[in-house]
Amino acid sequence: MRNDIVPDIVVRRLPLYLRTLRQVQRAGVHTISSEELAQYLGSTAAQIRRDLSFLGRFGKQGHGYRVHALIRELEYALGLDRTWDVALVGYGNLGQAIAHYRGFEPNGFRIAAIFAKSPDHIGQVVNGLVVLPDSDIERVVSELGIRIGIIAVPASAAQEVADRLVSAGVRAILNYAPVVLRVPVSVTVREIDPISMLQSMTYYLRDPSCDEHRSYADGDLTGAIRAEPRPEAR
Amino acid sequence: MRNDIVPDIVVRRLPLYLRTLRQVQRAGVHTISSEELAQYLGSTAAQIRRDLSFLGRFGKQGHGYRVHALIRELEYALGLDRTWDVALVGYGNLGQAIAHYRGFEPNGFRIAAIFAKSPDHIGQVVNGLVVLPDSDIERVVSELGIRIGIIAVPASAAQEVADRLVSAGVRAILNYAPVVLRVPVSVTVREIDPISMLQSMTYYLRDPSCDEHRSYADGDLTGAIRAEPRPEAR
Repeated sequence: MRNDIVPDIVVRRLPLYLRTLRQVQRAGVHTISSEELAQYLGSTAAQIRRDLSFLGRFGKQGHGYRVHALIRELEYALGLDRTWDVALVGYGNLGQAIAHYRGFEPNGFRIAAIFAKSPDHIGQVVNGLVVLPDSDIERVVSELGIRIGIIAVPASAAQEVADRLVSAGVRAILNYAPVVLRVPVSVTVREIDPISMLQSMTYYLRDPSCDEHRSYADGDLTGAIRAEPRPEAR
Repeated sequence: MRNDIVPDIVVRRLPLYLRTLRQVQRAGVHTISSEELAQYLGSTAAQIRRDLSFLGRFGKQGHGYRVHALIRELEYALGLDRTWDVALVGYGNLGQAIAHYRGFEPNGFRIAAIFAKSPDHIGQVVNGLVVLPDSDIERVVSELGIRIGIIAVPASAAQEVADRLVSAGVRAILNYAPVVLRVPVSVTVREIDPISMLQSMTYYLRDPSCDEHRSYADGDLTGAIRAEPRPEAR
């Protein structure tokens, strides 16, 4: 299966390459080296060459990539040589922001159905779409053949929504709810999780000088976080 | 420096462990094995043990982790034994959704200042905060000693906002704008990028049967994406 060929960590980076290449193309650039691309991306030339090698060979080193050709290869590899319909479930503040976001269509996605639970939201019209009751999820998603869902409901409702989207044929879920969804292996999930991202940054903000009450063992790397196992932690 | 000790990929996973542990704690669970944790997280027990070993040793294998103690260790490691003030820049649909999001405070973050460009937004009151003109960024962020910024402005304005936040003392940026920010090495950036996430999922949705016009070389793994380098791609 092709799905297993390119490591997922590489698949996740390909859209960043595509975005950057489109930006430099708009700026009138026709060829770009892996070194230049690395600068734009805060990456390394070696990693970019390795990642792009999964798409095939792109000519001699030192000549750079042809921007237009590489964009086409990336679009093809990522399945972006078409537009994908997306079902949005949830129409609170976040769902509304997503529904109004204008970045989807230029990038290959079209919100084709919006579902809400609240009677206040059902029946509203957004970009020509009527917000539907969430009881319609199965019928509409399967009738329209939608394969991609965006979940923007509270954490407590997210798993049920995911189950219903999957049963209606969705195979890719962008999950804004702060919960790990359980889905069949045939379904891909990506999480939008601002809290985890913030929490993973405060790790770097902690002031090391505040750590002095900890009994660090000199020269013990592990000790920089905690010198010794605490008796109460087992 | 501690910053270099735990690989960033591990640092990014620690908040997921924390979130899951808090969930099981609320459900009344006192100890949990790495196998159980792995099930909740769609991960493996080995990876969880390896990741958590960066925090120190947590007793004998087979006894499981004490949930309460592990939560405290994670909070400490991630700098979440305090509340962090956050500056939000941008008050369009997305900025408003972020401002109204109630998930920040229970997780250690408090939006302490909101900045907007549009006169329609400046002066609005949200959760007791007056939306300020973005010309106030430097003064307010530095006066309040804010170290974390959330950027929710259009891509074209994001770099300038980042520069100004950094010059005012911000050291961690959560970036919702679809652009790679250039920041000093002392600043951590995480990107919220729904388009890239969607695009990295369509890779798995592409129908292999549509690939038949491509001249795949049988048994050539690379060929599953493209059999031969195209002449025009160099």
